[in-house]
Amino acid sequence: AGLTGCGTKGPTSSAPSAPSTNTMGLGAMNMGMAALNQPIKPMTEVRHGQNVTINMYTEERVVTIAPGVRWAAWTFDGTVPGPVIQLDQGDHVTLILHNIDPRMPHSIDLHAAQIAPSANYVDVLPGQSRVIRFVTEVPGVFMYHCATQPDLLHMEKGMYGEIMVNPAHTTPVIPQYHLVQSEFYSNWDALLNGSPTYVTFNGMADQYLDHPLTAKVGQPVQFAVVNAGPNEWSAFHIIGAIMSSVQPSGSVETVFHDLQTYSIAPGDGALITVTFQQPGTYKFLTHSFRDVEKGAVGEIVVTP
Amino acid sequence: AGLTGCGTKGPTSSAPSAPSTNTMGLGAMNMGMAALNQPIKPMTEVRHGQNVTINMYTEERVVTIAPGVRWAAWTFDGTVPGPVIQLDQGDHVTLILHNIDPRMPHSIDLHAAQIAPSANYVDVLPGQSRVIRFVTEVPGVFMYHCATQPDLLHMEKGMYGEIMVNPAHTTPVIPQYHLVQSEFYSNWDALLNGSPTYVTFNGMADQYLDHPLTAKVGQPVQFAVVNAGPNEWSAFHIIGAIMSSVQPSGSVETVFHDLQTYSIAPGDGALITVTFQQPGTYKFLTHSFRDVEKGAVGEIVVTP
Amino acid sequence: AGLTGCGTKGPTSSAPSAPSTNTMGLGAMNMGMAALNQPIKPMTEVRHGQNVTINMYTEERVVTIAPGVRWAAWTFDGTVPGPVIQLDQGDHVTLILHNIDPRMPHSIDLHAAQIAPSANYVDVLPGQSRVIRFVTEVPGVFMYHCATQPDLLHMEKGMYGEIMVNPAHTTPVIPQYHLVQSEFYSNWDALLNGSPTYVTFNGMADQYLDHPLTAKVGQPVQFAVVNAGPNEWSAFHIIGAIMSSVQPSGSVETVFHDLQTYSIAPGDGALITVTFQQPGTYKFLTHSFRDVEKGAVGEIVVTP
Ligand SMILES: [Cu+2]
Ligand SMILES: [Cu+2]
Ligand SMILES: [Cu+2]
Ligand SMILES: [Cu+2]
Ligand SMILES: [Cu+2]
Ligand SMILES: [Cu+2]
Ligand code: NA
Ligand code: NA
Ligand code: NA
Ligand code: NA
Ligand code: NA
Ligand code: NA
Ligand SMILES: [Zn+2]
Ligand SMILES: [Zn+2]
Ligand SMILES: [Zn+2]
Ligand SMILES: [Zn+2]
Ligand SMILES: [Zn+2]
Ligand SMILES: [Zn+2]
Ligand SMILES: [Zn+2]
Ligand SMILES: [Zn+2]
Ligand SMILES: [Zn+2]
Repeated sequence: AGLTGCGTKGPTSSAPSAPSTNTMGLGAMNMGMAALNQPIKPMTEVRHGQNVTINMYTEERVVTIAPGVRWAAWTFDGTVPGPVIQLDQGDHVTLILHNIDPRMPHSIDLHAAQIAPSANYVDVLPGQSRVIRFVTEVPGVFMYHCATQPDLLHMEKGMYGEIMVNPAHTTPVIPQYHLVQSEFYSNWDALLNGSPTYVTFNGMADQYLDHPLTAKVGQPVQFAVVNAGPNEWSAFHIIGAIMSSVQPSGSVETVFHDLQTYSIAPGDGALITVTFQQPGTYKFLTHSFRDVEKGAVGEIVVTP
Repeated sequence: AGLTGCGTKGPTSSAPSAPSTNTMGLGAMNMGMAALNQPIKPMTEVRHGQNVTINMYTEERVVTIAPGVRWAAWTFDGTVPGPVIQLDQGDHVTLILHNIDPRMPHSIDLHAAQIAPSANYVDVLPGQSRVIRFVTEVPGVFMYHCATQPDLLHMEKGMYGEIMVNPAHTTPVIPQYHLVQSEFYSNWDALLNGSPTYVTFNGMADQYLDHPLTAKVGQPVQFAVVNAGPNEWSAFHIIGAIMSSVQPSGSVETVFHDLQTYSIAPGDGALITVTFQQPGTYKFLTHSFRDVEKGAVGEIVVTP
Repeated sequence: AGLTGCGTKGPTSSAPSAPSTNTMGLGAMNMGMAALNQPIKPMTEVRHGQNVTINMYTEERVVTIAPGVRWAAWTFDGTVPGPVIQLDQGDHVTLILHNIDPRMPHSIDLHAAQIAPSANYVDVLPGQSRVIRFVTEVPGVFMYHCATQPDLLHMEKGMYGEIMVNPAHTTPVIPQYHLVQSEFYSNWDALLNGSPTYVTFNGMADQYLDHPLTAKVGQPVQFAVVNAGPNEWSAFHIIGAIMSSVQPSGSVETVFHDLQTYSIAPGDGALITVTFQQPGTYKFLTHSFRDVEKGAVGEIVVTP
């Protein structure tokens, strides 16, 4: 995946390599609803060999989290979740976080990095920028999120996403979908002590019932799933399929086989491989079914 | 387990092969409390080699979920949970679901199958039947449940059970108990946002305190556990024992060793092996202890 | 770790072998606040080869669970959590539990033991003692706790701790911190159906923000984590690090690699190894962030 290439990419290049691009489709829906009149600043990624420079932007936006439900979000790059950051193992990454929110500080904590939080995951004031450097030593499916206090609130407002590190010396041949499960609450007390109002994949309840993912019979497909929480576990499950492999945190070394359901903690991720055996419509969801009622379900249309 | 046999079996033949038959004893208790005056239709299973034909029946019944507490259940075959479906890897299964509930549609979703939900896990109208065909490719301890909308409610009313697929080329030599953990709620709001009133093993709070399971010192025993939820995780634990092996989802390939407690997500299962070392009384429970107070605890009497 | 030694040790000898002794610092804080005027009786451990005799004491104490918040605790040896019990695989242990609480029975359930609960985990009346004998067959990071009814309450009042069994034929070379996560509730209804007021590591909210743990760049460090619950899961995570290995329940046989977050059920434990790569300040926490707001977070200062 671009180990030797050199070029400039916009956010669409980090879209899933799966047949459909619906997994990141929420961003486009929000384009016309800028809060505070700031322009949308999408992430950019420039690669020279394994030197990668990423620009990301923290900004407030009004987004749609369920049909007809608008949400005053705090975002990375204008969407909830933020963009999928796609990297290769061994990349030397320079990430510049630009806080274009005129009102409050933000920051970024990347689970894929092994660097000092006190020097890197620190507040960036409105109008300022900060450079974070790290090497992607461990392949996996990781979460990133804002780490500004109160971090519980910055996360619940929408400041999280997936950062995927592909193993070195591999060419990804299996189509991948990127799914971020997360919760939205009605108020601070519910966030601290109650239950969520909406639970979503990629930031909008039930969106993949209207716009299903797609797959082919007999061809493996992978789900790179992050549970952004901020509070609840996911019991990730695909109706009609058995997971031929589950890689916790996307680990290359640790691989489980033949599972019906896999628990993903808040702040964790997993790489899940399935092969659908018949054409038809399938569903993915969390098998904690109260959260299905709140939006954490989508469809996959499988064709011959 | 019957790879070459040919015969007709009633539900007692799918009872645990462990020394006690208490694990499925709840059904008998409910025999005299038919709702809507329909006759109880128990599951039947007919095997010719590896061709298996199963008839199952969805029906409403009043069952007992705690001492003195009756529950207007929606059931598979008149009990909560439904019967344990015992199969061998490689079986060619024809399952005919008969909806003898005069009032509402039902359906069945079998985690052991790899088939199109849109063609198989669909509503069966009152008085109608539907044929589902699948091959048991993956051994394991799986959940089955009703998938009719709202599925959260159909599950919470009692429509779930365990379907176990034994690995090919093995003769089960270890006694097995089948345990299905599940929650019962007082109303829809509690089901969506609150906590359960009862949490049970095999559908009745504290039933195995009164009627313990049994085991022998020094002889391995297996617990084939399904957590039917519909919402909560189980922290399955056996007081006085350490799990010599845990097979998540009952997987043959993935086996963990020497665990004190194992998390089972809603919609998941596990095959857990322990060997008791002293005679006496032990307990199994979820170590999320508020659920112990609500009934999720039982005893095992171990004799020399 | 003392396989051939012979001597008498007080509770400080079971303190972490990591550079800091802060992990058990809570006990000292409570020394002057005896409830019911009983003297504090700390645990003692006497070893002759692999024969170990442990005296432990159940007693009521007022402890501090958050800055300025006192808690009428039920304790092992005067602290919440109780002392870390450090053993080697193959030890022959004689544990004498002395109940010096004048008001109520207590008991002890040790997840590291494989013995009959009905003969060992039984109530000890006020003023009485009881001898429990077991052999540490399985290495691991285990929970112990009071098992007197209502056990949910005895645990929530503070009666739990960590018992660690080090593998035979090994010399521990990696510094270890012992962390016990647990919840405190405001009343019985919250304990049964609501959410905790405080969630802590080693019994006091935010204590390791004021008094951080320490580590060295490039030197592996281990966290022996027990989640005492009594109800909730931990999504254990270390900001700025990736777990190079996770041993569920401290198992020697089952080891996972390269994880960002690890779920620990109530009643479970894990042995987690990380190597910090840069000097600075890091945090450990549960990534279920509502519990971070309630105190389940601490710092680690990493020096060159
Ligand atoms: Cu922020
Ligand atoms: Cu994080
Ligand atoms: Cu139904
Ligand atoms: Cu299911
Ligand atoms: Cu007690
Ligand atoms: Cu326990
Ligand atoms: Na905070
Ligand atoms: Na499979
Ligand atoms: Na629904
Ligand atoms: Na064992
Ligand atoms: Na009890
Ligand atoms: Na690593
Ligand atoms: Zn390099
Ligand atoms: Zn916070
Ligand atoms: Zn496999
Ligand atoms: Zn065949
Ligand atoms: Zn539903
Ligand atoms: Zn083993
Ligand atoms: Zn010995
Ligand atoms: Zn209790
Ligand atoms: Zn490794």
